[in-house]
Amino acid sequence: MAEPKENLQMEKIVSLCKRRGFVFQSSEIYGGINGFWDYGPLGAELKRNVKELWWHTMTRQRDDVAGLEATIIMSPKIWEASGHVATFSDPMIDCKTCKGRFRADQISEISCPQKPSKTVSECSGEKTEARPFNLMLQTYVGPIQSDENIAYLRPETAQAIFAQFKNVLETSRQKVPFGIAQVGKAFRNEVTPRNFTFRSREFEQMELEFFIKPDEVVEAICGKVASAADVFGRADLPVGQDAQQRVPTTAIEPQPNWGWEVWHKYWVEERVRFYEGIGLSRETLGFHHQTPAELAHYARACTDILFKFPFSKKDADGNVTGDELEGIAARSDFDLSQHQRFSGKPMGVFDDELRAAWAKLPKEKQDDLWKRYYDNRKNYLTKSAKPDETAEQIQKQATEDANGLAKGQYIPHVIEPSAGVDRLILALIANAYSEITETDDKGKTETRVTMKFHPRVAPIKVGVLPLLKNKPELVKKAQEVRDLLRPWMNVFYDEAGSIGRRYARQDEAGTPFCLTIDFDTLGEKPELLDTVTIRYRDDGRQERLKISELRDWLLARIR
Amino acid sequence: MAEPKENLQMEKIVSLCKRRGFVFQSSEIYGGINGFWDYGPLGAELKRNVKELWWHTMTRQRDDVAGLEATIIMSPKIWEASGHVATFSDPMIDCKTCKGRFRADQISEISCPQKPSKTVSECSGEKTEARPFNLMLQTYVGPIQSDENIAYLRPETAQAIFAQFKNVLETSRQKVPFGIAQVGKAFRNEVTPRNFTFRSREFEQMELEFFIKPDEVVEAICGKVASAADVFGRADLPVGQDAQQRVPTTAIEPQPNWGWEVWHKYWVEERVRFYEGIGLSRETLGFHHQTPAELAHYARACTDILFKFPFSKKDADGNVTGDELEGIAARSDFDLSQHQRFSGKPMGVFDDELRAAWAKLPKEKQDDLWKRYYDNRKNYLTKSAKPDETAEQIQKQATEDANGLAKGQYIPHVIEPSAGVDRLILALIANAYSEITETDDKGKTETRVTMKFHPRVAPIKVGVLPLLKNKPELVKKAQEVRDLLRPWMNVFYDEAGSIGRRYARQDEAGTPFCLTIDFDTLGEKPELLDTVTIRYRDDGRQERLKISELRDWLLARIR
Repeated sequence: MAEPKENLQMEKIVSLCKRRGFVFQSSEIYGGINGFWDYGPLGAELKRNVKELWWHTMTRQRDDVAGLEATIIMSPKIWEASGHVATFSDPMIDCKTCKGRFRADQISEISCPQKPSKTVSECSGEKTEARPFNLMLQTYVGPIQSDENIAYLRPETAQAIFAQFKNVLETSRQKVPFGIAQVGKAFRNEVTPRNFTFRSREFEQMELEFFIKPDEVVEAICGKVASAADVFGRADLPVGQDAQQRVPTTAIEPQPNWGWEVWHKYWVEERVRFYEGIGLSRETLGFHHQTPAELAHYARACTDILFKFPFSKKDADGNVTGDELEGIAARSDFDLSQHQRFSGKPMGVFDDELRAAWAKLPKEKQDDLWKRYYDNRKNYLTKSAKPDETAEQIQKQATEDANGLAKGQYIPHVIEPSAGVDRLILALIANAYSEITETDDKGKTETRVTMKFHPRVAPIKVGVLPLLKNKPELVKKAQEVRDLLRPWMNVFYDEAGSIGRRYARQDEAGTPFCLTIDFDTLGEKPELLDTVTIRYRDDGRQERLKISELRDWLLARIR
Repeated sequence: MAEPKENLQMEKIVSLCKRRGFVFQSSEIYGGINGFWDYGPLGAELKRNVKELWWHTMTRQRDDVAGLEATIIMSPKIWEASGHVATFSDPMIDCKTCKGRFRADQISEISCPQKPSKTVSECSGEKTEARPFNLMLQTYVGPIQSDENIAYLRPETAQAIFAQFKNVLETSRQKVPFGIAQVGKAFRNEVTPRNFTFRSREFEQMELEFFIKPDEVVEAICGKVASAADVFGRADLPVGQDAQQRVPTTAIEPQPNWGWEVWHKYWVEERVRFYEGIGLSRETLGFHHQTPAELAHYARACTDILFKFPFSKKDADGNVTGDELEGIAARSDFDLSQHQRFSGKPMGVFDDELRAAWAKLPKEKQDDLWKRYYDNRKNYLTKSAKPDETAEQIQKQATEDANGLAKGQYIPHVIEPSAGVDRLILALIANAYSEITETDDKGKTETRVTMKFHPRVAPIKVGVLPLLKNKPELVKKAQEVRDLLRPWMNVFYDEAGSIGRRYARQDEAGTPFCLTIDFDTLGEKPELLDTVTIRYRDDGRQERLKISELRDWLLARIR
């Protein structure tokens, strides 16, 4: 259970979110709907900024990533191939007495609806065995509600990327290694939505599927696969833990001899740099390296980047490790292979360089690489076999797959950095929240909130304030400054109330800079003509800047 | 029926969309899913640019609009209040023989699935009466599929804005008149998705609800409500038709004495200016002014902005009027009133200025305004009455509502510019599509496509091309130029193939500018050191520009 202090911190955050229009309960006037949250004016801007920065960093800033925007509803066959129809479920039990349905792993925590003094496991109601309850929201597309018209709201954005892999490859002039990025809504019918917007039923994801050559292919072409120690040094530390201790540096340039391990580590580093770049320092983050028992059978590694939320629990040693913002998984060639099996459409690529390199390899090396590739394919095919597939069929298929190497053919592996937008927004809000309690001359105590957002994500970049509202020349000049900056950034113009109150309002909205237009701006002190006062949110410091320099001064700080 | 030439034009567009990665069929490897379309790398960028420009224009560039980002799934009560549960439907008939379901208004066009030589209306199958088929996609939220857990995927984004009206008003420091803007997905279970992405089942909307004072309130405060002729001149022309003939000008500044008619006309003009600003000239647009018979009972006017698509039909006079991109509706106070009735939460506002003005009005004027407001409220309450409401109850409520004026209270009216993103993308693609067929010296004929997107929406803003790929100093310089521009715009770096082929590829992607880095850039002609050749997509014209000036030169053209 969260401790009272942490509850209080969350309460303050939830209250600020409602009061200042970051987050509202969906459908609030109708009593709400459990697990759904709306973003108000400031929240919508914050969220747009974060999504835009992710897109910019992951797609537009790179030569090796292409974007995609797929539909939420896709063919249900996609979810059969991905395994979601069969296994994306929680075990549930029904109580025949009260007709309630409960998560099997929570019945000793949840109160009986009819006898709240007892838990569901203790009460006398007759219960069913635990049965899987699929978490995908289901609907019918087309005029008839029949089984053949069942469709699902996607529980993740990733699968559309795999399904469109060949289309993107063929139209984007990309070659492996390259990635496909997507931002969009996903839905999970969570039994117990909780922790404000952290676990909700409708949420948004930012996912990259970065396709790489299998290690055997890298080795065939480059002779040797680079180790993590070669590239990052400090191989003694696990991925992420390493990241936590390294000083942030500029990105390392990807190299042709990188195998999955280096690529995985590279993306963990890139993503941590992203979070640092929007104000989440390494101290606020945690890392979880999934253990072999936690990993899916096809996954080779998964590093979760965590944020220490106010509701995050302490571990046995009393340390807060945090809750997941993003998982970076090395998923082997599982996803493309599954879609190849289920669609019957080839998902492999042809690589001229591999074919040329293979022909030049000594027989011994060919056999070694062939055998390792074969073993991997056989392992995948065995673990994902349909009931009617025999060992011989699997061997035959794996042989065919491994024979493809000599022809330059393979199925790419994938590294998947998958981030939750809403969780990140909540992390940014929790991280930014700062309050001070001051007592004035008259002994009056006031608590003021400042939202210390990084300027890159702040919903409003600059407040423009005429010193006085009833002086037309000040108002006119302030509106000119507003109109000068507005094409380039989100500006809030405010002329109501004292300057101090207006600063306080912008502090609470997280606006990093405020500009005041005063009589000096108009030339009362001639040397200050056409200058404004710029006031910093975090320390109240003030400087004088020329209006002509404002745009570039601000752009340098908000981008 | 569309004529062959128009079909051919659509075929070319669909083919280009697939070939260059603008639009793919959703779930294509599984045979697709009818009515769902994915945006590939170029399409995703185009769509992002359009949504970003809309958001920027409608929200960030204005003091009087706040943003919102609400969930797709909301309380089902919202759709009861809006009328969608009861009336958002198409009449359908079932055939008991073939088990097919058909739109009642299409049975004489559609072939019988069992006897394709006959239409459904002609075949011998036994059919039901026409029954309403609700177009909202339905799902269940929560662990049990019971009636109380039914939820809908929103069929429009607008209702969330009404439901959150008070929350936004209270947190955003806005006062009527002001607007709330939202961009997001919506879903309609169209029986017959058609015309490529024009009518699909999953689509995206950009909606503004702009809340205004009722005319009686404007009159009470300002003495007189401005007429359209006062503001726009040319009152002889209907809205939109006027727009079509006016030279585009800068926006008119809204004034306190505007009533619904001027606001409606203002928003039509603003929206036309938006379309012009992204390359859709007035000649490509059409207007439809809904007739009293077409208007919903609560609506006072609705102007549709149309685009002349290749599939748009000719009217009786042989003119193409176009198909709808956006509707701008004057919806009175219907929406907020409905949510007030269904939620029991007050949706009115308090206006100090009205209260003060009202107190100073002569009794005669008060009575006149009171009576007009009363009549409007009574009309609304009568038309939307629940079965058990009596005429007396309605009169009592309307009296209470009209008595609110003296206290400064009223329910705002709304003007709704509601645009479809996917339709606009299709319009931009159709508008940009341009081909020329050239015969070279050897008599070889080639058809080349140029996508003449406005630079503001073009997916790629600039191609950066080293003259030769095997000259490291050219490649290095080109990559420096790429990295200089990339933080500010979407850049495509391409070194593969002849310059001519690279230009052609960028022409087909719609990239407005290409930069070539050649030996002069490196100083072969000393006076050209650190300059590049900029080549214009639409006419092939070339100029020499300094690298140091590139960023600002491009920004001035793409923003």
